[in-house]
Amino acid sequence: MYKEIRLSGTGGQGLILAGLILAEAAGVYDGYEVIQTQSYGPEARGGASRAEVIISDHVIDYPKVTSPDIVLVMSQQACDRYGRQVKPGGIVLVDDTNVGSIPALEEASVVTLPITDIARHDVGRQVVANVVALGALVGATCIVTPEAMEQAILARVPRGTEELNKKAFSVGLETGREARARHETP
Amino acid sequence: MYKEIRLSGTGGQGLILAGLILAEAAGVYDGYEVIQTQSYGPEARGGASRAEVIISDHVIDYPKVTSPDIVLVMSQQACDRYGRQVKPGGIVLVDDTNVGSIPALEEASVVTLPITDIARHDVGRQVVANVVALGALVGATCIVTPEAMEQAILARVPRGTEELNKKAFSVGLETGREARARHETP
Repeated sequence: MYKEIRLSGTGGQGLILAGLILAEAAGVYDGYEVIQTQSYGPEARGGASRAEVIISDHVIDYPKVTSPDIVLVMSQQACDRYGRQVKPGGIVLVDDTNVGSIPALEEASVVTLPITDIARHDVGRQVVANVVALGALVGATCIVTPEAMEQAILARVPRGTEELNKKAFSVGLETGREARARHETP
Repeated sequence: MYKEIRLSGTGGQGLILAGLILAEAAGVYDGYEVIQTQSYGPEARGGASRAEVIISDHVIDYPKVTSPDIVLVMSQQACDRYGRQVKPGGIVLVDDTNVGSIPALEEASVVTLPITDIARHDVGRQVVANVVALGALVGATCIVTPEAMEQAILARVPRGTEELNKKAFSVGLETGREARARHETP
């Protein structure tokens, strides 16, 4: 198993923290080898945000994401930039609350979910959109176990927000699973 | 300018968060190109923790720390493993609250400071030892501006802990500056 994941959006959406949580779910709780990277450059100062995680069952030699298997895009800018950079057979998970123009891909699946709307209305706090996204990612791709992800989330979120984040994760997970089921039964 | 920094210790000392804050200080607030990496493997599950940051004024091609300029060690295990892996002319910053056996280096400086004791007694909360360490790092090495570091800290710490963390940073900064002055006036 060797998977590259890119989480992209704008600053303030909590994607750096989401990358950290995904890495810890895979590395600390599921026992994989994991490398997690953030880059800051002119791009980051322009409001874009990107976190990358590589998950493998072998030692990872080259810590750079070259052709992601899974891409999360949570802003139009991120979608325009990263939405087409996905491995054939890969998955692009699009938060269509923030992305209006969605790429048509021939060799990869596009899963659109209203992640930010779900956070706002079903969970009640927009700030947990990143955790809804992590749930959706796990539900749609099975990249880590739900148990590992929940543990990793609870270990990183601010004290006092555990219940809110558990709810965000479980709502996201369910939505992601439903989306996968729709994809698998055409 | 091209600097590699490694922060090492045990899980629970907050070094992953410290790496993230250092990266954001340099990348978002000081305007450098920055790559920040965490690795999780058998090592992490054994309680060791390591975060790496590369800061440059040019685009960074290879995102892996090969020979750090600055190493922070906050546990004996981390010191044994990483304390000697430093560039000639580099600096090893040792938290001697947790490290008893300190390497003698010929080509690099070793700065020992009781970082965890400072957090516990001068700031009043051991949990901010990571922020004291960031202050000491800035004071002893000038790797980023104090202003950028303080902004990055305040942007990442839990709401309600801003004053505590400001104090931790300023006490660490002062201690690091004093240590540098002692080194420079033999």
